[in-house]
Amino acid sequence: MSEYLTPLAELAVRFGANVQPGQIVALSSEPGKELLARAVAEEAYKAGAQFVDLAVFDVHLKHARALYADRGTLAFVPPWYGQRMVALGEARAALIQLSGPVAPHIMDDVDPALQGLDMLPSLKEAGPVVNDRTVNWTIVPCPTPDWAKLVHLGLEPDAALARLWEQVGHVLRLDEPDPVAAWRARFDQLDAVTAKLNGLRLDSLHFEGQGTDLTIGLFESSRWESAGFETVDGLRHAPNLPTEEVFTTPDPERTQGVVRSTKPLLTSGRTITGLTVRFEDGQAVQIDADEGAETLRGLTRRDAGGSRLGEVALVDRAGRIGPLETVFYDTLLDENAASHIALGQGFPFVIDEPGESERFNDSEIHIDFMIGSNEVAVTGTTRDGREMPLLRGGDWQI
Amino acid sequence: MSEYLTPLAELAVRFGANVQPGQIVALSSEPGKELLARAVAEEAYKAGAQFVDLAVFDVHLKHARALYADRGTLAFVPPWYGQRMVALGEARAALIQLSGPVAPHIMDDVDPALQGLDMLPSLKEAGPVVNDRTVNWTIVPCPTPDWAKLVHLGLEPDAALARLWEQVGHVLRLDEPDPVAAWRARFDQLDAVTAKLNGLRLDSLHFEGQGTDLTIGLFESSRWESAGFETVDGLRHAPNLPTEEVFTTPDPERTQGVVRSTKPLLTSGRTITGLTVRFEDGQAVQIDADEGAETLRGLTRRDAGGSRLGEVALVDRAGRIGPLETVFYDTLLDENAASHIALGQGFPFVIDEPGESERFNDSEIHIDFMIGSNEVAVTGTTRDGREMPLLRGGDWQI
Repeated sequence: MSEYLTPLAELAVRFGANVQPGQIVALSSEPGKELLARAVAEEAYKAGAQFVDLAVFDVHLKHARALYADRGTLAFVPPWYGQRMVALGEARAALIQLSGPVAPHIMDDVDPALQGLDMLPSLKEAGPVVNDRTVNWTIVPCPTPDWAKLVHLGLEPDAALARLWEQVGHVLRLDEPDPVAAWRARFDQLDAVTAKLNGLRLDSLHFEGQGTDLTIGLFESSRWESAGFETVDGLRHAPNLPTEEVFTTPDPERTQGVVRSTKPLLTSGRTITGLTVRFEDGQAVQIDADEGAETLRGLTRRDAGGSRLGEVALVDRAGRIGPLETVFYDTLLDENAASHIALGQGFPFVIDEPGESERFNDSEIHIDFMIGSNEVAVTGTTRDGREMPLLRGGDWQI
Repeated sequence: MSEYLTPLAELAVRFGANVQPGQIVALSSEPGKELLARAVAEEAYKAGAQFVDLAVFDVHLKHARALYADRGTLAFVPPWYGQRMVALGEARAALIQLSGPVAPHIMDDVDPALQGLDMLPSLKEAGPVVNDRTVNWTIVPCPTPDWAKLVHLGLEPDAALARLWEQVGHVLRLDEPDPVAAWRARFDQLDAVTAKLNGLRLDSLHFEGQGTDLTIGLFESSRWESAGFETVDGLRHAPNLPTEEVFTTPDPERTQGVVRSTKPLLTSGRTITGLTVRFEDGQAVQIDADEGAETLRGLTRRDAGGSRLGEVALVDRAGRIGPLETVFYDTLLDENAASHIALGQGFPFVIDEPGESERFNDSEIHIDFMIGSNEVAVTGTTRDGREMPLLRGGDWQI
């Protein structure tokens, strides 16, 4: 058991989700994450939680379903799954999710054409609940032996797990005397960046380098935000820990060009490497990859918004994840190592003008992939036509 | 992994729950039971299940709740728990539960007065769903290292687990060439006994020996049944595997005398040994035990029916569990080693006359404990006053 186990649980409950007395806490876990799940539950009850509602998702069952169930049933989700999510929003619950890949190669033997049909554990009801900001939520990483083996192939199992815990402890600032104070300071930095970006009144972003030449058009009234959120009731929470990004939601019809991913992506139990996506008028019209292309294509066909962007996020090299030069195969960590974009669900709550916010990209999927590096230049064009360098060599130019 | 893992999953799906194509299968599991849960899910999908809805209950979270949550919140259950159970009934789902104690001593440091407040994973909605017979369900044992250690204290962990698997395989008839055929034959025997018992038109039962002197009054229109059930839609299923019992539901107001348990009982995470209960006019008015009495007292105070009997079951020594002379600390196995009674919820569906069936014992609890042995004589008194020996030395006399 790592020395960081209890501090991580405390950070998730007290700062990440910011659990309040009397709240229900929905805790999403997976087999192998029991120790952290129990530590989180204990901290939640110590913080006054009314009830910790554990939901364990086992990807082995999803795998058995993909192999043996009738194809026509794969999109079925029992109605009580969505009803629970809606009820959690109505109850003003807290949500805590334990991230980190489990059985990462399990879906390798499944027909990619089936991959986009069963979207669980994702729920279409989760997007609206998040966008209504009725729940205070957080996602935190949970090191497991399986994950450690994936990230640190060359190490013995115990050493790999110890190394992963050390890295997770570091990127979560658990090695600081006061992790919460360290996070408050980092959020202040990120908030200063969002204030500058919002002041620039950008019309579009341009990413260039390492095979990428991509322009992303922005809404006139969309704001940049850091991942320090507030619920409708004014409760502060940190949806992702760690977080190093500033992000906004782009115009789903104004992305043009080609983008090449700078890190592998693990989604729906499949690893996607060497990903290249070509956009025309906002739509991903060509998806290629060294491996896993068909899986991503299947996912983007889920609905009309699946092939358009819902998010663009900028990450500088002052964050703690990039310098580790480690691929974690977990979006929570990898997306905070470098600038990234996401296909699928956008964030209407960052668009101020009602006419524009209706046009946010709506989808049941939200798949982040990394497109930034120190060798990819990011340049903004303001609404009055000026070009502004934003990131060069991974450093802010503003 | 035991050679019995897949055969056990097959028995649970194909014979126990008798899963039908298109059904939702609600699968209740606990941490440590992943291998069998996955095998069951795979068999269920192979049998045509539409969806396997896994619910994992972690008693460590219940423990943290008991220690740290406000006492006033301990009886709270999120409304979606009961709504899911009701919806499973409406959907004509199959239910499969993996039994076997996990972390058996975890609740030892919890105030017994709190034990009856948090009844999870039991749900008050489960009783009506079972009684409406809308779901085809089964409970099967799942060997785990923790359980093996509890049962076979003297053995090394690997040997203990192997021995428990061997015993579970044996009592489930998985060591027979055709386990389903073996079960059909045993159900035929049990059905023959119920036919004889029903022919006797018994008014009451008397248990005598080893500190027990107990009379249990029966309803006029109640039937004896074996644990071969049928849903309202005519689907056969075996709620308990293994099962060696014939049972009925007694008149909740006509139990008199003293009963001494013949085996320890594990309930709500507490072991109860040396249990003695005195009944007056159907009500348990005195509960004593060598250990755990206060836990059981707390549970029986849950509601008005908690201190009255809902079940009486007779078990002969031809079953496979009794001869093992092993205490399994799991009701599913132990209750089928010997005749037993249960405090709490009764079975209205075995009472034919509507006027009587309204008087069945209604409760949120159902706690079985063993009162039979080869040294306890069971005698029936017929409605016309004849005394009939039923069990002597563990053998049927009818």
